[in-house]
Amino acid sequence: MGTRNIFLKIAYDGTNFHGWQRQPGRRTVCGEIEEALARVLGRDIRIDGCSRTDAGVHALGQTASFLLEDHGIPTERLKKALGDCLQTSKRERLGEIEILEVKEMPEGFHARYSAKGKRYLYKIRRGAHPDIFKRTRYYQIAQPLDTDAMRRAAGFIAGTHDFACFQTAGGTPRETTVRTIWDLQILEDGEYVTISIAGDGFLYNMVRIITGTLVEVGLGKRNADELPATIESKDRGRAGHTAPPQGLYLKEVFYE
Amino acid sequence: MGTRNIFLKIAYDGTNFHGWQRQPGRRTVCGEIEEALARVLGRDIRIDGCSRTDAGVHALGQTASFLLEDHGIPTERLKKALGDCLQTSKRERLGEIEILEVKEMPEGFHARYSAKGKRYLYKIRRGAHPDIFKRTRYYQIAQPLDTDAMRRAAGFIAGTHDFACFQTAGGTPRETTVRTIWDLQILEDGEYVTISIAGDGFLYNMVRIITGTLVEVGLGKRNADELPATIESKDRGRAGHTAPPQGLYLKEVFYE
Repeated sequence: MGTRNIFLKIAYDGTNFHGWQRQPGRRTVCGEIEEALARVLGRDIRIDGCSRTDAGVHALGQTASFLLEDHGIPTERLKKALGDCLQTSKRERLGEIEILEVKEMPEGFHARYSAKGKRYLYKIRRGAHPDIFKRTRYYQIAQPLDTDAMRRAAGFIAGTHDFACFQTAGGTPRETTVRTIWDLQILEDGEYVTISIAGDGFLYNMVRIITGTLVEVGLGKRNADELPATIESKDRGRAGHTAPPQGLYLKEVFYE
Repeated sequence: MGTRNIFLKIAYDGTNFHGWQRQPGRRTVCGEIEEALARVLGRDIRIDGCSRTDAGVHALGQTASFLLEDHGIPTERLKKALGDCLQTSKRERLGEIEILEVKEMPEGFHARYSAKGKRYLYKIRRGAHPDIFKRTRYYQIAQPLDTDAMRRAAGFIAGTHDFACFQTAGGTPRETTVRTIWDLQILEDGEYVTISIAGDGFLYNMVRIITGTLVEVGLGKRNADELPATIESKDRGRAGHTAPPQGLYLKEVFYE
């Protein structure tokens, strides 16, 4: 059997987790999956996730990979067993993580290093009255949003730029803060506004700060035409607030 | 000022609570509201809720009342202060309880004893693939439901009957198990099926057992025409399973 390279595609409701990355003594998505893998495979496994989502952030298509030595379990059986294992006995925690796909990849594949890009969704709910049943899924905005102005601002963000102004200090150090946003759309559906953003890479908190900036434009607190100068400044202090985690969804990771 | 009779109308997401009723050392909806009242009013208050909803059950219109001696706080200010107090600092718990209404009632009014009836909604989601973001809001059913058969069965349940067969042992002892269901509808909206049920009173777990029975009819495991005999038997063992708590919502309490 030798060494197998196993790929996982995962969805989760991030509400009750301290984010993706394992932390001693705290409940994290990565930690729960590793625990389930240990039970299923009878050994300790360390998985590498593509994106270290923060506490409260959700995923519709997170990816991870790990190497499995000399173990013949078929991927379909691993998927089923992992799924069963992740159904814990606590009612409110039932089904917070879903294993969407398990497959074997060629040698050299790595969930993070092989990724060519990602798409995130940021979901906003507009309306004077918050809905308690949606509080962990959306950023609630009471005032009207000028989505045309938000689209104009988004037009300045799409493309290749040095995005240092949209980065929180404290993330993994990077060689460069230049990234390419391939696609940035503001979608409307009744009371909901979704920001859909795809690119070759994202700095720490980048989607949440872009969202906060676009929301400020939508609220009329900031002019869309200032965006080029804001980006040019590379100054975090000139961009908008960091939108809260519960509206953010890692939608998809792209590979070759 | 003398004694004021204060009425509360409350919505909550029951997912992370051990139900309504206060219990030492456990987080309950009633307990959280009493804690907030103590902070706002500067004294210990015991409130009486209309319905002792179980762990995981939600409310869109729970009611409660309490007596307030010699305290002049205007009801609008009390509503605002309570709302602020219930916004705890833990992100995932933000906004789980909403105070919808605070008003002063005449002497003798009591949220539970003055109630003339209630409406509950029970929400079902159909579909082979569960949605992790809806797991705490709906009863997920993978197989197709014959809603016409469910409506035929519901027709036998509506009206005045001895509903002993739809009662779990262990609730508050009652003088009689005869109740009147005024209205029982099966509503469909795409993947969602909602059972809307109103009546003058409900036995312990009655809505969840009626739902379980209707679901079994919808799945073809039970014939709608057996319902009269099931009710007649007064035997819990002949009715269906108790549907899970997360689909149940206390919608409204009716007063004169």
